[in-house]
Amino acid sequence: MNIEYWRAEIDEVDRELLRLLNRRARLAAKVGRLKRAAGLPFSDPDREHTVLRQLQQANTGPLDQRAINKLFRRIIRESKRVETQLQEPSVATPSRRVFV
Amino acid sequence: MNIEYWRAEIDEVDRELLRLLNRRARLAAKVGRLKRAAGLPFSDPDREHTVLRQLQQANTGPLDQRAINKLFRRIIRESKRVETQLQEPSVATPSRRVFV
Repeated sequence: MNIEYWRAEIDEVDRELLRLLNRRARLAAKVGRLKRAAGLPFSDPDREHTVLRQLQQANTGPLDQRAINKLFRRIIRESKRVETQLQEPSVATPSRRVFV
Repeated sequence: MNIEYWRAEIDEVDRELLRLLNRRARLAAKVGRLKRAAGLPFSDPDREHTVLRQLQQANTGPLDQRAINKLFRRIIRESKRVETQLQEPSVATPSRRVFV
């Protein structure tokens, strides 16, 4: 197998990650709406702590615990942003602008 | 559906994300070994740029382009770290220490 072969595999994993990250954000938005309706506080550090601990316990590598922590903190942060922004319909559709 | 129901769905998505992130890191390590064997430079900004652009083009939201960019830059960075570290067998097994 050459480099191109494995890069194609990585591209496939990335497309699946993209799909799941957006799915997670949509689910977080649902939770956000329910919290709002129930008058519950938006932020829940206990839940976040539990999520991160469970993932670290489930992790078998090769990513180490520091990496899992950093990755999921970012994932949670971006999900939470959608959770707040989706209250306003204007930001539900992402900008198509590419800014790599 | 209540908050607990959607949180269970989020937990399931997170476990799948964990699996895919580790799979991506293993694939990146394979690419790293092939690059090394071929005497190619470890860093490849063109490839990274292409990966990020493709993901932004494929993105349909609700995560916006800024979020996708931030998330995948972190994913690429952590994959690359494994790509270098896996050269040394001692770090192939992650520490089980939980530090949330």
